[in-house]
Amino acid sequence: MVVGLGPGNRDSFTAEALTAIREAQVVVGYHTYLNLIPDLIEGKEMVATPMRGEVERARQAVELAAAGKTVAVVSSGDPGIYGMAGIIIEVAGGRVPVKVIPGVTAASAAAASLGAPLMHDFAVISLSDLLTPWETILKRLEMAAAGDFVIVLYNPRSHGRPNHINTARDIMLKYKAPATPVGIVRQARRGQEERTITTLDRMLDVEIDMLTTVIIGNSQTRVAGKYMLTPRGYHL
Amino acid sequence: MVVGLGPGNRDSFTAEALTAIREAQVVVGYHTYLNLIPDLIEGKEMVATPMRGEVERARQAVELAAAGKTVAVVSSGDPGIYGMAGIIIEVAGGRVPVKVIPGVTAASAAAASLGAPLMHDFAVISLSDLLTPWETILKRLEMAAAGDFVIVLYNPRSHGRPNHINTARDIMLKYKAPATPVGIVRQARRGQEERTITTLDRMLDVEIDMLTTVIIGNSQTRVAGKYMLTPRGYHL
Repeated sequence: MVVGLGPGNRDSFTAEALTAIREAQVVVGYHTYLNLIPDLIEGKEMVATPMRGEVERARQAVELAAAGKTVAVVSSGDPGIYGMAGIIIEVAGGRVPVKVIPGVTAASAAAASLGAPLMHDFAVISLSDLLTPWETILKRLEMAAAGDFVIVLYNPRSHGRPNHINTARDIMLKYKAPATPVGIVRQARRGQEERTITTLDRMLDVEIDMLTTVIIGNSQTRVAGKYMLTPRGYHL
Repeated sequence: MVVGLGPGNRDSFTAEALTAIREAQVVVGYHTYLNLIPDLIEGKEMVATPMRGEVERARQAVELAAAGKTVAVVSSGDPGIYGMAGIIIEVAGGRVPVKVIPGVTAASAAAASLGAPLMHDFAVISLSDLLTPWETILKRLEMAAAGDFVIVLYNPRSHGRPNHINTARDIMLKYKAPATPVGIVRQARRGQEERTITTLDRMLDVEIDMLTTVIIGNSQTRVAGKYMLTPRGYHL
């Protein structure tokens, strides 16, 4: 089982995720997530793994499952969106069945904190080029901006690629007005959440790192009081 | 509070959503959703509303909140994705504070049932032209396909627009190979879930209606045993 814990603390888990962890004989995951659930994993076999090393984590999980154990691989957000679901299915190669338990993804969590920016068609793009050619990412940024999508950026900046977000912003400015609202949420729905609503031309003044989700509005997005809003088009 | 119940039954609710409903004095929602939570709403004021009429539902909720009540507007999925969050913020107009509690959206739910189709950048597009010009939707379908996004279609077909899905498929075929995997999930994560993995050229042979979510792969998406998989690009 590949289990999504949602964006935040215990109250972002679904009942189904809790049940999956309770039923598992082995729980595999990054230390940070295991530390959220000490009561649920007490007495179980545990495989705590470092942040990278997804392939090794998947191999361990699949080996344990192939040996007859019920295994839960836990991660934050939705494991089906840039998460562990894919690599587990690849490594399993049909030897063991894989069940994905979805969670609330970062796009939903950041949007909820900002108001309602995703009432309309949107594109989700990761700026990490660790596993994707940068040219592919650039093409997608162009197409999403040309299509007037609301655009959600995952992994907007890391030490290894500090300037990708600048390039992404410049592409946006070819198609979107400088005053387009941009929402920036760090640690969405966690205790230390930081939330800023700014504009496309000023967004780079805000601190953006790997724990941040960036939502860039479409041509209809506006600021409504404290909220970022992409109206759906109702006649009021 | 605008509260997302997730895609399915009680086990798709987050703890935060349950708490919000428990704390509310008034619960507003479509009959179907209120019927899922009889124990949670017992003794509370309720406003059950028909499927359409979102504006009227929002007005009632805001009036009650302005009168000092704690109100929870409940809906399935994530209220921040094509849901009630936007219209509530619009109607509230700053008179009452609005808090959005996110839920697992249909894209995540359908993806989990199919395997791991959303491991890579994706676009979410609604084919409903009730509130969006059809030309805008066509443009977005073109751009998303040209950008080699995985594409998630919400509201793929209704009685009023039975052929939009055919047009969408034809646009996809301009950019994507006929053998591109397509996942079709009806009633994702509910008791009567139906799940099909087919190809772009044959997808119209499958029954598609308003309760269906359609996920069209990118150029890397493949079928891996029983699963639809868009690999992330790990070296195995």
